[in-house]
Amino acid sequence: MGIVAIAKDSTPNKQEGLAIAKSNGTTSTNLKYSGQKPKTPILETINYPIHMKNLCLEELVQLASELREEIVYIVSKTGGHLSSSLGVVELTISLHHVFNSPDDKIIWDVGHQAYPHKILTGRRSRMRTIRQTGGLAGYPKRDESLHDAFGTGHSSTSISAGLGMAVGRDLLGKHNHVIAVIGDGAMTAGQAYEAMNNAGYLDSNLIIVLNDNRQVSLPTATIDGPAPPVGALSRSLTRLQTSKKFRQLHAAAKEVTKQLGDKTHEVAAIVDSAIKGMIGGQGASIFEELGLHYVGPVDGHNLEDLVNVFEKIKSMPAAGPVLVHIVTEKGKGYLPAEVAADKMHVVAKFDPQTGKQVKTKTKTPLFTQYFVDSLIAEAKDDGKIVAIHAAMGGGTGLNAFQKVFPTRCFDVGIAEQHAVTFAAGLATEGLKPFCAIYSSFLQRGYDQVVHDVDLQKIPVRFVIDRAGLVGVDGPTHYGTFDTTFMACLPNMVVMAPSCEAELMNMVATAAAIDDRPSCFRFPRSNGIGSSIPPNNKGTPLEVGRGRVIKEGSRVALLGYGTMVQSCLVARELLQEVGISVTVADARFCKPLDGNLIKQLANEHEVLITVEEGSIGGFSSHVSHFLALNELLDGNLKWRTMTIPDRYIDHGSQSDQIEEAGLTPKHIAATVLSLIGENKERLHAINI
Amino acid sequence: MGIVAIAKDSTPNKQEGLAIAKSNGTTSTNLKYSGQKPKTPILETINYPIHMKNLCLEELVQLASELREEIVYIVSKTGGHLSSSLGVVELTISLHHVFNSPDDKIIWDVGHQAYPHKILTGRRSRMRTIRQTGGLAGYPKRDESLHDAFGTGHSSTSISAGLGMAVGRDLLGKHNHVIAVIGDGAMTAGQAYEAMNNAGYLDSNLIIVLNDNRQVSLPTATIDGPAPPVGALSRSLTRLQTSKKFRQLHAAAKEVTKQLGDKTHEVAAIVDSAIKGMIGGQGASIFEELGLHYVGPVDGHNLEDLVNVFEKIKSMPAAGPVLVHIVTEKGKGYLPAEVAADKMHVVAKFDPQTGKQVKTKTKTPLFTQYFVDSLIAEAKDDGKIVAIHAAMGGGTGLNAFQKVFPTRCFDVGIAEQHAVTFAAGLATEGLKPFCAIYSSFLQRGYDQVVHDVDLQKIPVRFVIDRAGLVGVDGPTHYGTFDTTFMACLPNMVVMAPSCEAELMNMVATAAAIDDRPSCFRFPRSNGIGSSIPPNNKGTPLEVGRGRVIKEGSRVALLGYGTMVQSCLVARELLQEVGISVTVADARFCKPLDGNLIKQLANEHEVLITVEEGSIGGFSSHVSHFLALNELLDGNLKWRTMTIPDRYIDHGSQSDQIEEAGLTPKHIAATVLSLIGENKERLHAINI
Repeated sequence: MGIVAIAKDSTPNKQEGLAIAKSNGTTSTNLKYSGQKPKTPILETINYPIHMKNLCLEELVQLASELREEIVYIVSKTGGHLSSSLGVVELTISLHHVFNSPDDKIIWDVGHQAYPHKILTGRRSRMRTIRQTGGLAGYPKRDESLHDAFGTGHSSTSISAGLGMAVGRDLLGKHNHVIAVIGDGAMTAGQAYEAMNNAGYLDSNLIIVLNDNRQVSLPTATIDGPAPPVGALSRSLTRLQTSKKFRQLHAAAKEVTKQLGDKTHEVAAIVDSAIKGMIGGQGASIFEELGLHYVGPVDGHNLEDLVNVFEKIKSMPAAGPVLVHIVTEKGKGYLPAEVAADKMHVVAKFDPQTGKQVKTKTKTPLFTQYFVDSLIAEAKDDGKIVAIHAAMGGGTGLNAFQKVFPTRCFDVGIAEQHAVTFAAGLATEGLKPFCAIYSSFLQRGYDQVVHDVDLQKIPVRFVIDRAGLVGVDGPTHYGTFDTTFMACLPNMVVMAPSCEAELMNMVATAAAIDDRPSCFRFPRSNGIGSSIPPNNKGTPLEVGRGRVIKEGSRVALLGYGTMVQSCLVARELLQEVGISVTVADARFCKPLDGNLIKQLANEHEVLITVEEGSIGGFSSHVSHFLALNELLDGNLKWRTMTIPDRYIDHGSQSDQIEEAGLTPKHIAATVLSLIGENKERLHAINI
Repeated sequence: MGIVAIAKDSTPNKQEGLAIAKSNGTTSTNLKYSGQKPKTPILETINYPIHMKNLCLEELVQLASELREEIVYIVSKTGGHLSSSLGVVELTISLHHVFNSPDDKIIWDVGHQAYPHKILTGRRSRMRTIRQTGGLAGYPKRDESLHDAFGTGHSSTSISAGLGMAVGRDLLGKHNHVIAVIGDGAMTAGQAYEAMNNAGYLDSNLIIVLNDNRQVSLPTATIDGPAPPVGALSRSLTRLQTSKKFRQLHAAAKEVTKQLGDKTHEVAAIVDSAIKGMIGGQGASIFEELGLHYVGPVDGHNLEDLVNVFEKIKSMPAAGPVLVHIVTEKGKGYLPAEVAADKMHVVAKFDPQTGKQVKTKTKTPLFTQYFVDSLIAEAKDDGKIVAIHAAMGGGTGLNAFQKVFPTRCFDVGIAEQHAVTFAAGLATEGLKPFCAIYSSFLQRGYDQVVHDVDLQKIPVRFVIDRAGLVGVDGPTHYGTFDTTFMACLPNMVVMAPSCEAELMNMVATAAAIDDRPSCFRFPRSNGIGSSIPPNNKGTPLEVGRGRVIKEGSRVALLGYGTMVQSCLVARELLQEVGISVTVADARFCKPLDGNLIKQLANEHEVLITVEEGSIGGFSSHVSHFLALNELLDGNLKWRTMTIPDRYIDHGSQSDQIEEAGLTPKHIAATVLSLIGENKERLHAINI
């Protein structure tokens, strides 16, 4: 069904104040963002993609404007990912116009750009709930819609999943299309390469849309503006983008080869094939070398081009793996996003007219900030300290480190595997690498942590940010498993601070540990207001030594990391009903403080370990110690409080902690249930 | 120091029966392998690389012959990795001749090709101990020698580590060289791509030697011959290898561009640059696109070429990242290896004259064989079953599956990340993927297991071969952590069979579990001789149901996987001294059999969990269950027996189990110590 034919038959709805489609299919950028609910006459008629099938080009272009206004309006009320979605409005419309989701599978890599997709696939009315407790997820989620072919959140998985779907389709004799949409940033990850290499080999029909916006769409750049994807590949893509001049040379070049005549036939063939390669741009070869058919670059904001390209590919019976390279602008059509340093990648609620975000005032900075402040303090005194992150300069705070030490900070791209081994290489030279990776993303470098660091006892320091339940991003980004998978490694020192001052001490501790690897985890939250050391310079802790914070008699609460604070609050609740509680801060999961645990076990009726982590972590190490030291053979009541063994949905962190059963009240209630208190007691402290 | 100059000054030692260097630096392949200790007059003079510096070309060539004979002789006595080492004899000699290890860093990717390196770096006299308990490691190991710049074992880490060393060197103002040697098979892994992309960006001096032998150097092909690396990249490398003809055309092509004259100046420039690209071969661009300087292809068995190339690169002050593409033959110079289907990749002891290996007769096949037999049986009845492996068709047994179901088996290359998500994609289409990855390598796909499979509750079946202590390969290949990192995932069913019949039942169980992911682990060892089901077709187990194998009264041993058999033997030992022991087979780590555990805890004085895995796994799940169900509050003595929290060196599996303290005697001794038996009792059962 050709777009041009339809355009002739239908008359676009033009309304005052709405964008008028340009004749070439490009979106107008003169949209008005009044802050009022936008008028969206075409969008009103679309609940599912099937309602878009008969729209003409001009209507599609108008739909793009409406969708853009709708997204700005919604996200201004909810906060969330903004500019990636604005960048793929035309792409989303063209895909849903040309292909037939959910029969055709559309996979959104990372998935933070899926807002227009959600709006067009039956979820428009619920968009105001996005990322909130009980609301829509911020990322595609198979449970949420048939149109979400694959759940994402982490980057660079889409081609693998899409190839699986394509091969599965072939095995079952079906004929649907599979489309993986992946950004240029995500292309720096090894998994994308592995998948392309395999796709080129298997030769199934698969459409890969490379959404090239010349930056890593991650919270990587909050200081100096957008960060281009790191790595040489980025240069290739830039060459591709500027390769249109080669098209103009194509005819001339052909002429040349003709002129050569019979005399130099072989040479002519070579020249011809070389020039052919250039049509796609000089750098197309990286994809072609991997066996993909390269198409592009295509203007990703031109609906006519997009629809034509996809129609053409759709109509080819055996296209094999095709990579469509589209060029888009992040934040497209919304000036405040287009000009913002971070492109308004992820935002709080904001004023649509100005783009000014409502910043919630917090009494203290994020833990991330305390981390980087103290790392800078350490690095000022020790020239061997270097920092590594994987396309997360903003999120890990290391952009601030880079400003102070530009030659000692390394952004390796979305490449956690490489980040870890690269850090190991640096450490073998005697440098002191701090490798900062979110808990959830460290999973991607796990084999390297085991094989390249821990086994060789190489002193890499892992900085595990976003540990525990992380709130709005939901379970794709949870940092719940790190203590389990790190503490089982024989040589690893595993720590968690109970407050920001302790975090700074642990940065100093990690800097000092130079004979084996170490790690420390901290949450996505603000400091508790503890008094931090002068000049942000922590004091190294004795390795494997915890501390008693409050003395008590009957019950011992042994907290790890964030949960120490909850234990202290629980202690106060219990004090109100006359129960004497000791609170200890383990500080180290490994090596454990055996003396502290023995003391707690011997001097109390009840010992409860409390942690914001999964089974197999801190509590398990304590249980082994207790058992082997005969401390469980008597009447001690030992209990564990961990994150329960299920995934907790996105929402506010406090809702998540509540659902996890890890609030101070839950801790107090557990204590009361163990020491046989009656219901009145429970009511007395309002549990 | 030019090789030619040296050649003029010195006279090669030529001895009867030794290979004579050809004038062009190529090794003679007419070596004689008598089975007698070879005469190695030049090798005798070399303890360390410094002793090779003054050898002339002819001597180096003779050294290559001697080294090859030495390796064949040694490995024929010890068993081990043979043909990869034979393939890099000239490379190793040229690197150690030109560069100055250990100041210059040489990193051997995977590391099974490092035997000549070990011989030339002070370990010749200990080569007969290789891979044996207390002997040399089978892979490079930093603890073993200063010349082992980085420990390897898993593939595709060398460029990352090398880049870290190069950047570290630059930061410290040093000027040594860093050389990463990586195979074409290892190039299929995402980490290699991540590292090349980063190397091209950082532009440090780094030499990457691509050792292209047109195959994955893994035990991937034991049926039909060597397997080329899977993926489109392989085709590119083949093109590179055949690209020499382009060199001859270079002059002619230049002529053409000249003829174009001023008239079409722009076109001429393009043509010239295109032809320049071809000099390295059509496919060079994939490396060049990633910012590496491509040199090659070079004959990897021609010492003159190798030495010249490395001398040239060494002498460039700011070469940046250079990729030297060398072409070698696996097993080179030893005919039985050259012609063998598996190229004699890893061998038992063998007769050097014929290459015939001494096969130890075993009563039963490997667990791997039982797995694949039963998977084939399941797949015959269920057309939706498919199998995926990551360049391990031989090791995982799936080559046999592929023979029966050629369209339903997928080798994705050394690409575990992709393998997992690809399997997830297949499962979303309704297929039933069995994704077979060694325990140790599954670490590399961990994030994908979490994010793409478990979180989405997609029914991928993980087949975890080589679980536990794996013997000669040592800790790089240990499968000790899988239960810990898999069982913490909320949706995963986690199983381990206690014998081969149970393995077959678990294959059937996994096939039947179609609403969530599952996994089962089994060891690198032979079946115990249990009677297997008819036609290899297992019976699905009730999920989460263990079993009591032997009834007793005082002590309960709860085994998981392989350790169930050890518990049974321990029971017999204890029976001799009148102690009544119950032995149970947990079968499932997740979901746990709560009723079974309650029964064991309530009816015995002592409960011991025994597993061949690290802390945080099965025992931890049991401890949580016991605590939450108040089963530890009384006088039950609960103990865990796990692999201890340290890395155990390579050696025989039985030595490793002994060192781990997991033999039946260790179990019996633990029981006796817990029930207060005296020394006489212990002596009675010879503990």
